[in-house]
Amino acid sequence: MNDQIKPDSNTLIELDQLLNDRKNAVPDESYAASLFHKGLNKILEKIGEEAVEVIIAAKELERSFSEKNVADPDKARKDFIGEVADLWFHSLIALSHFSVSSQDILIELQRRSGTSGHAEKAGRRST
Amino acid sequence: MNDQIKPDSNTLIELDQLLNDRKNAVPDESYAASLFHKGLNKILEKIGEEAVEVIIAAKELERSFSEKNVADPDKARKDFIGEVADLWFHSLIALSHFSVSSQDILIELQRRSGTSGHAEKAGRRST
Amino acid sequence: MNDQIKPDSNTLIELDQLLNDRKNAVPDESYAASLFHKGLNKILEKIGEEAVEVIIAAKELERSFSEKNVADPDKARKDFIGEVADLWFHSLIALSHFSVSSQDILIELQRRSGTSGHAEKAGRRST
Amino acid sequence: MNDQIKPDSNTLIELDQLLNDRKNAVPDESYAASLFHKGLNKILEKIGEEAVEVIIAAKELERSFSEKNVADPDKARKDFIGEVADLWFHSLIALSHFSVSSQDILIELQRRSGTSGHAEKAGRRST
Repeated sequence: MNDQIKPDSNTLIELDQLLNDRKNAVPDESYAASLFHKGLNKILEKIGEEAVEVIIAAKELERSFSEKNVADPDKARKDFIGEVADLWFHSLIALSHFSVSSQDILIELQRRSGTSGHAEKAGRRST
Repeated sequence: MNDQIKPDSNTLIELDQLLNDRKNAVPDESYAASLFHKGLNKILEKIGEEAVEVIIAAKELERSFSEKNVADPDKARKDFIGEVADLWFHSLIALSHFSVSSQDILIELQRRSGTSGHAEKAGRRST
Repeated sequence: MNDQIKPDSNTLIELDQLLNDRKNAVPDESYAASLFHKGLNKILEKIGEEAVEVIIAAKELERSFSEKNVADPDKARKDFIGEVADLWFHSLIALSHFSVSSQDILIELQRRSGTSGHAEKAGRRST
Repeated sequence: MNDQIKPDSNTLIELDQLLNDRKNAVPDESYAASLFHKGLNKILEKIGEEAVEVIIAAKELERSFSEKNVADPDKARKDFIGEVADLWFHSLIALSHFSVSSQDILIELQRRSGTSGHAEKAGRRST
């Protein structure tokens, strides 16, 4: 198993650390630092904007399947992935604003779905 | 943090698998199966709803710090975590609808942030 | 357009009055009374939901022009009008919650657009 | 009754006319012309953004009542009115994009609420 392509294991933890560093950085040093400096309302506006962009990108991706003349499915898929990444990134910024870790979200997702962090337990859902 | 409670390593991958199973399940078997059955527009409406609930929960959490008589900070923090979990869960459903993996989102997040799956590289930001 | 069906002249003012009555009504008497009773957060969630439904309905309407096999343009147009009406209706509920009149919004719209309530002045835009 | 302060009677109709003119204007002539030129997705993104700004402004207004040290109620009320005006303005742009009149929305609002354009009929609701 190759460490280079195992994104799930560390990506969110590293982003938490990165964003926590940016909270105390000079505003014009990075996009995240600038957003922290603008404050919570601006962070929340971005979450709203990105959610809407996910929705529009999803509709474009759906349309690209039936109307290939209107949109290229590969580009539409790439755009959709980019918008979901944007939504999650801005969620992480909001979490960081309140000193909540991404791991708290994953633990909550596990709790709700009945998964528990181990692949073999993924089958323990209500069937 | 010990291995038993290291949610980041597998949680999203397991949720991908779980949701892919639910795509072909009977609609009334689970919430996710029912949502897949209702189709993309309903999934996207839920993303919009959950984004708004994250925003409102964040404003309540913010307020709980200064007005402890209005809201209990611990409950407000728990509610906020629950709403972000809901937003991510419905994002995963939308991804699954298009057969996109959560790992594609993490790879995109790495690419954008300049992290690459190794904690020591988290420092390689533009300074 | 005859006088009987000149909706603009009174519709919003009448809705303001109707909603103000509903604020003090028994919750199960009407949808609006029930929403006022649930409180501001629920009203704001509905505004978010309806905005997303406007966005999705607009994408469906757009698509119906090129893919008539997917959606009927007349139905899609009707759905779009219904969703915008829902968005405005829930905006009016939020206004009423704060005892703001729809007329305050129209006055602000006039102020911004450079119109002033007289058709002949509509031409006074920056040309 | 003073014609100068009767905004409801003509404001929306005038805005419809204004926006229809802007649809064919040079993009950099006005904000609306520029938005029409960018196309439907950009118009819809703005509706999403403005809905979120209404939600945040409403939370600020609510908070200003109990925490006068945090926010000035008069300014918060003014901001809220401005955000609802923005939401309606961008709704009108979306309507204009599809050649739907604001009056179609008002007629739909009348139909749903049981009002019919005459103040005396506002009482004919389900009681």
